[in-house]
Amino acid sequence: MTTTLQIFGIHGIGEVRAGEDLLSVIERGLRASAVQLQPGDILVVTHKIVSKAEARSIDLRTVEPSPLAQQWGARWGKDPRQVEVVLREAARIVRMDRGLIIAQTHHGFVCANAGVDASNVGADETVLLLPIDPDASARRLYEALRAALGFAVPVIISDSWGRPWRDGVTNVAIGVAGMQPLADYRGRRDPYGYLLNASVMAVADELAAAAELVMGKLDQRPVAVVRGYAYQPGAGTAQQLVMPPERDLFR
Amino acid sequence: MTTTLQIFGIHGIGEVRAGEDLLSVIERGLRASAVQLQPGDILVVTHKIVSKAEARSIDLRTVEPSPLAQQWGARWGKDPRQVEVVLREAARIVRMDRGLIIAQTHHGFVCANAGVDASNVGADETVLLLPIDPDASARRLYEALRAALGFAVPVIISDSWGRPWRDGVTNVAIGVAGMQPLADYRGRRDPYGYLLNASVMAVADELAAAAELVMGKLDQRPVAVVRGYAYQPGAGTAQQLVMPPERDLFR
Repeated sequence: MTTTLQIFGIHGIGEVRAGEDLLSVIERGLRASAVQLQPGDILVVTHKIVSKAEARSIDLRTVEPSPLAQQWGARWGKDPRQVEVVLREAARIVRMDRGLIIAQTHHGFVCANAGVDASNVGADETVLLLPIDPDASARRLYEALRAALGFAVPVIISDSWGRPWRDGVTNVAIGVAGMQPLADYRGRRDPYGYLLNASVMAVADELAAAAELVMGKLDQRPVAVVRGYAYQPGAGTAQQLVMPPERDLFR
Repeated sequence: MTTTLQIFGIHGIGEVRAGEDLLSVIERGLRASAVQLQPGDILVVTHKIVSKAEARSIDLRTVEPSPLAQQWGARWGKDPRQVEVVLREAARIVRMDRGLIIAQTHHGFVCANAGVDASNVGADETVLLLPIDPDASARRLYEALRAALGFAVPVIISDSWGRPWRDGVTNVAIGVAGMQPLADYRGRRDPYGYLLNASVMAVADELAAAAELVMGKLDQRPVAVVRGYAYQPGAGTAQQLVMPPERDLFR
């Protein structure tokens, strides 16, 4: 049987303000895009609108850079106030070299600039942080959606991250609710009888990446609906996508 | 306008033998799946069937493990002949610890086991290597498809790789033809007027990841067709996805 996946980019969401109800924001987009959620759908939401709704922005004019932030900023031509925010969001610095800061966040994620998004710094001089607990944010939206719809739709909150050894960034899942983020095929056999040894697929990351293809980087479509993927329901979280330290060769 | 992506999983390909013509293999699957390629489509092909068609397998019974392979195998409970094949495929060892070998291949890719796929080792004791030049493999299939169809369909050859700091594997692009693998948004403005500073999306990797969602790890569908993605045509390669050494903080 042919397996077909459909991915809808949701437009018409417009600016999201601090304190706005995320369910209303999503419903506005779904109406504008004439997409009705169905059982089996998965909702992918860029963290930017979650962080905005949760007022996770910092006005750089209120930030006093530390000596380290000042030195690093001067050396590499970075705004020392932005560097200061990155250092504050970091639980551990993994690499700090050639103007790049790769840090582990308090969530356990390892990413550039500890997830601080300065790409939208404009006249208002604000930077955007990751949600305090993206899994909790996903779960709140998942519960609100279930109450509104009468059925469950898993939620993935995404961000765009770079990778070691690979150029360019891809979307990954930083918050998950209502599904298992990993699909474990270990011990199963392929159609030719071969045993699959090392096949745990990070399907939540692949769903986030797939969603990015319809979102458009210019943020016209900060939400996507994936239809037709046979996900594994369950109380999964994006924390399951964090490599345990004992298996991490790149600390 | 709502943007919609469709991804079709192509089944009915069956076993691929060494020396088989890849275009015929793909056409067999498209017919069985009742999917007709259209202008605008992108074809994603798992490297396994490419490597099989190109006879890139090694019979372990012909492999004489070196002392290093024997020691490593004994220490970590690995088949020393498999370890030997990994060491031969490696141009540079990036990490060799806790039973894991992360190596740079002669293509420049950094991945576990230098891309040697032992997951399908069965009674016949063979392991599968990456294609010698996956960009060239993609280009040959792209040219053959164009000749057969009368229009161009970009080709992505994919493999499943682990990532530092993230659990699970995701599909990435190891061969590309007919499209740009990176979408560069730097210097453009989002709908709110904000300048995007650091947004080069690795869209070929995202397309590979999206395709995996319909492929199914058990290899029933080693090919996928992505319809509705506005790719950038051009002579792109997967080499463009390799991080240049001078920007690589994780050598």
